[in-house]
Amino acid sequence: MDQPATKSRVNLSGLPAPAVRAEIRSGRWQGPTAGLAPGFAQANLVIVPQKAAYDFLLFCHRNPKPCPLLDVTDPGDARPRRAAPHADVRTDVPKYRVFRHGQPAEEIRQINALWRDDLVAFLLGCSFTFEAAMVRAGLPIRHIEEGRNVPMYRTTTSCRPAGMFRGPMVVSMRPIPQADVPRVVQVTARYPLAHGAPVHIGDPSAIGITDLARPDYGEAVTLRPGEVPVFWACGVTPQAAVQETRPELMITHAPGHMFITDLRDEDLAIW
Amino acid sequence: MDQPATKSRVNLSGLPAPAVRAEIRSGRWQGPTAGLAPGFAQANLVIVPQKAAYDFLLFCHRNPKPCPLLDVTDPGDARPRRAAPHADVRTDVPKYRVFRHGQPAEEIRQINALWRDDLVAFLLGCSFTFEAAMVRAGLPIRHIEEGRNVPMYRTTTSCRPAGMFRGPMVVSMRPIPQADVPRVVQVTARYPLAHGAPVHIGDPSAIGITDLARPDYGEAVTLRPGEVPVFWACGVTPQAAVQETRPELMITHAPGHMFITDLRDEDLAIW
Repeated sequence: MDQPATKSRVNLSGLPAPAVRAEIRSGRWQGPTAGLAPGFAQANLVIVPQKAAYDFLLFCHRNPKPCPLLDVTDPGDARPRRAAPHADVRTDVPKYRVFRHGQPAEEIRQINALWRDDLVAFLLGCSFTFEAAMVRAGLPIRHIEEGRNVPMYRTTTSCRPAGMFRGPMVVSMRPIPQADVPRVVQVTARYPLAHGAPVHIGDPSAIGITDLARPDYGEAVTLRPGEVPVFWACGVTPQAAVQETRPELMITHAPGHMFITDLRDEDLAIW
Repeated sequence: MDQPATKSRVNLSGLPAPAVRAEIRSGRWQGPTAGLAPGFAQANLVIVPQKAAYDFLLFCHRNPKPCPLLDVTDPGDARPRRAAPHADVRTDVPKYRVFRHGQPAEEIRQINALWRDDLVAFLLGCSFTFEAAMVRAGLPIRHIEEGRNVPMYRTTTSCRPAGMFRGPMVVSMRPIPQADVPRVVQVTARYPLAHGAPVHIGDPSAIGITDLARPDYGEAVTLRPGEVPVFWACGVTPQAAVQETRPELMITHAPGHMFITDLRDEDLAIW
């Protein structure tokens, strides 16, 4: 209480997941979550009505690379009992995006007013987990170096449909020096619950990407001579599917504003 | 046609999965499937009405060690489009077990007469996949040496419930020489879609098993001096859950009479 609130953001560095979520819940932190609660796994959030939940659950099972499932709540229950039993999916994400009939309708800071007894929340692993492993392995992450959002692209690879859900796989791209490509496969393959190994290495046109300089989401980054574009399945894939599927209501996190779980990054590793 | 059918079983050795399934479908092979179609992944089969399918799908997601999902059919569709697109789950298992309201009702050779437009089939990975890897690694498999069914036990470890489904985890046990225990963890951990690494090593009482000589399913095997009992999550777990859950109808394979997929054992490996 001695220090008056200022316009500058609170300093959350080094706080563990529950403390960071408390700052987000209180509204004191409203920004992106990259770099917060290091060591804790962050997650994509997808909320749909129970009527659509079976199809979405099956969609995740059939497309585990873009949609690696960490937790599914019971209908109407806002607590992810496995991933963060004391959290609340209605308040603990800094910014939500609401889709109605497949169209982005609004971005809001919490969703208490939209909550219903039939809503089911899905938490999907996120690339921050494997990027932390890349940093530990000394591998470059261009979009971090350049202070940008990771570039993401719709591909011509279709997801395996499940009931009402269908759509293209969305991928993120990171430029990797040719000599490091085997290593980046090894390092990221350890985390199948965070998209795992790349889905494509090299020629973007082979997966229907015509211009790396014009991503469909995020921002372009520099591809240097001797570097190979490496592509990972991306958690934005459900947001592309929702545009084709048009469920009555879908609520997600806003890009970069993730749900921070109590799981450790290493809980998402396979060995 | 030159060789008249005899009472002895047909010789299927070395045939690939589709040919073995054709023999099963025709009724020429009605026995257990252990050792058939080497290199192809065999699967546990669980069929439930669509009304129970969401709960069972979520049960599998929440309990991936006993219930590693390989494929889920669309309601009324008897073809597992991913695991064996030309197969038919109604005819391609040598023996089925039918549960009504949680009670085993009958064992039958095919289920065409029971098929309905609302039935959903789940294929779950099976220990045969990691046992083949153990053989390749030179590790002993006692129940095969002794010509018995693997011993299986209900434990005091509860599965994470999902809707109507709840129940104890069932485990299989294999005696492993003390010096080989780390190796058997490594070898089986490669196959998370076939139950993966053991869930418990050593003291049976720690997971509620009072007498190794009296398994709940299968047959007891010899535990020799210097050997450690090693326990893996088991695909019989859904059959234990059904007794607590009592869905109107559930159809499974009969023990040891598995569904043979077109997937390779290596498709179930993580690295």
